[in-house]
Amino acid sequence: MVNIAILGFGTVGSGVAEVMEENAQSISHNAAEDIRVKYIVDIRDLSGSPFADKLTRDFSVVENDPEVQVVVETIGGATVAYEYTKRALLAGKSVVTSNKELVATRGHELLEIAKRKNVNYLFEASVGGGIPIIRPITQCLTANELDEIYGILNGTTNYILTRMITDGAPFAEILKDAQRLGYAEADPTADIEGLDAARKICILADLCFGKSVDPESISVEGISGVTLEDIEYARRLGCKLKLLGRAYRLPDGHITAYVAPHLISKTSLLSNVDGVMNGIVVHGNALGECMFYGAGAGKRPTASAVVADVIDAVKHMKARKYIGWEESEPGWVVNAEDVKTRWYIRTGSGLEKIGRAFGDVRLISYPGDYPGAGPGEYAFATPELTGRELSAKTSTMEIRSRFRIL
Amino acid sequence: MVNIAILGFGTVGSGVAEVMEENAQSISHNAAEDIRVKYIVDIRDLSGSPFADKLTRDFSVVENDPEVQVVVETIGGATVAYEYTKRALLAGKSVVTSNKELVATRGHELLEIAKRKNVNYLFEASVGGGIPIIRPITQCLTANELDEIYGILNGTTNYILTRMITDGAPFAEILKDAQRLGYAEADPTADIEGLDAARKICILADLCFGKSVDPESISVEGISGVTLEDIEYARRLGCKLKLLGRAYRLPDGHITAYVAPHLISKTSLLSNVDGVMNGIVVHGNALGECMFYGAGAGKRPTASAVVADVIDAVKHMKARKYIGWEESEPGWVVNAEDVKTRWYIRTGSGLEKIGRAFGDVRLISYPGDYPGAGPGEYAFATPELTGRELSAKTSTMEIRSRFRIL
Repeated sequence: MVNIAILGFGTVGSGVAEVMEENAQSISHNAAEDIRVKYIVDIRDLSGSPFADKLTRDFSVVENDPEVQVVVETIGGATVAYEYTKRALLAGKSVVTSNKELVATRGHELLEIAKRKNVNYLFEASVGGGIPIIRPITQCLTANELDEIYGILNGTTNYILTRMITDGAPFAEILKDAQRLGYAEADPTADIEGLDAARKICILADLCFGKSVDPESISVEGISGVTLEDIEYARRLGCKLKLLGRAYRLPDGHITAYVAPHLISKTSLLSNVDGVMNGIVVHGNALGECMFYGAGAGKRPTASAVVADVIDAVKHMKARKYIGWEESEPGWVVNAEDVKTRWYIRTGSGLEKIGRAFGDVRLISYPGDYPGAGPGEYAFATPELTGRELSAKTSTMEIRSRFRIL
Repeated sequence: MVNIAILGFGTVGSGVAEVMEENAQSISHNAAEDIRVKYIVDIRDLSGSPFADKLTRDFSVVENDPEVQVVVETIGGATVAYEYTKRALLAGKSVVTSNKELVATRGHELLEIAKRKNVNYLFEASVGGGIPIIRPITQCLTANELDEIYGILNGTTNYILTRMITDGAPFAEILKDAQRLGYAEADPTADIEGLDAARKICILADLCFGKSVDPESISVEGISGVTLEDIEYARRLGCKLKLLGRAYRLPDGHITAYVAPHLISKTSLLSNVDGVMNGIVVHGNALGECMFYGAGAGKRPTASAVVADVIDAVKHMKARKYIGWEESEPGWVVNAEDVKTRWYIRTGSGLEKIGRAFGDVRLISYPGDYPGAGPGEYAFATPELTGRELSAKTSTMEIRSRFRIL
């Protein structure tokens, strides 16, 4: 019998308790041990909940109980969660989490503590919700030199972009709908502005390339600047607009990582990942490309990943998992604005300015050919340029949108 | 330093040696050990190959060398491969394989021997080539009761069906092309008639549902009966024709497993898995649906999975992995012909017979509306029926095609 404690009984924490109870039999079978939730640590009142008898407000009860061998941290954020995770690891308990902010910002440090204490810090649920992605990278693709990882890492923004495409309704309207349906939070900033995706791509880059990537240091652009014109012009190029987190190795051995809207070809499998779903593409030098798809958020899918980690922690009570990455040196992550890519441009400047900056370009749109367009609007795709080169070339132009083409 | 031996130096075996050499540095890092190929066992002449000095024709050299701790079996088939695998496991060596035939037919027995000898028998490469699927099922989805698994498990047939759809050329012509391009073997029977996919879906069903499923005992239908008319009528239903291996739990707790062409909706992600690629969908009660996509065959993708297993075997030298399933009792697998599904029917029988058997059906095609169609041809979709019910209803009709609708 292994005893666990759940810290934070919100959506994910309560999902973990429910899945543990519902699938108790197969979970015991898979772990080759019975697993019992001994404590739930939360400050809220759980009276009426079937789990009320396990509630405590005092984390030190968990910390000092030698019977508790695995702690589930589903508090979120990087303050209390950080403190409790550290104390649990230092007390010799394995910790399992869905907390992307904490893993992205403090992962290196917490994994080092886990290593020193010979316990595990596992975080499959921190990226892609229920989609298996952390363990496939760290265990299944180990024969490869990984060159690139990118994907649709945030369900809220993918839902909004998908509905803008299918319904032809503008961003603000769909956002309100998403909030009403529970797909977007009351304060949707972290999702909409790409911060959530940034944390996730940093965790993936840490694992794929072996060194820390700080979410604060990478270029992050959300979807609030995407308009229906952009959606239409992307369609004319045979593309869909999707918010991607992306990290890849550059020819000189450094890496770049960033979050931004991209035009991606409709013939790619990733472009068909719609609604709240997530899809993550990994490229390795032996395997080529593979993709992982599924529900990137939600109570039960996230709980599915957390509980799988609990089972893994129970199975590895005496054998530490090899997960970790090094601190990175300055300059390891090259700013995405300094890396060449093709760009889609929507502008109110005329053909003369476009021609002077880019020479002959094939226009995707010109004034009058799309009813919703702004005055004197042109759209076109550029050859490969860095973001800085693009900014220099367009410094005297009125730029309405600029997005990368994958 | 861990020494390994490769048995069988064909496409996959030589790919393993190449990837081990090319990515030696990151492989050592990931395994936390140097790994050396000490022997290659094959009957062919490797003179001129950079690996010639490792060649032996005598498996007992490997068997009796205590330095060899992991054996890679890439011989194929279930005769010599079976004997050598058994002897290697009994000699206390872990075995890693890409051999789907052996795992599907003797997996239970070999896993039992591995368990007894406290070594590992790993077979990630046996299904989906380089796509991580075995380990995600056995380690990442362990919190779920799995209800269903299905997918495009054979690249050769998917290539042929994809080109029939895109080129509008008939089966026999595309098959010849596929043979010329190396996507189909000189004797393509095992691929075309669904046997390869049958072995794979049986391995997946073993893992998902915990009991042996014998590929000889399940209903298997290949793609040689698929015509361009079928492709066209599927399109009219908003579907694509794909060869699926499928296994799922029935309401009474039993399972069914089979291989057959299916009409699947163009809005599904799986329908966009084209060419030689594979895609596998898993459904669990906590996670919902997830999909794994990538190269299902080929030298380097398959080697990617084999070498990842070698690394895992090296990391688990003293800790056995928990993989296995039980023997199944008679009746565990219900014949797919006894399970209800919707059917697509193409027939030369007239409306009177159709009406008598099925009542009012919505026709997909009627005589004269498609130039390639046979004389007096109708096509339609049925309500849910078992295969046997369908056969009874259509016993006096001239049935040209009957495929399941997913």
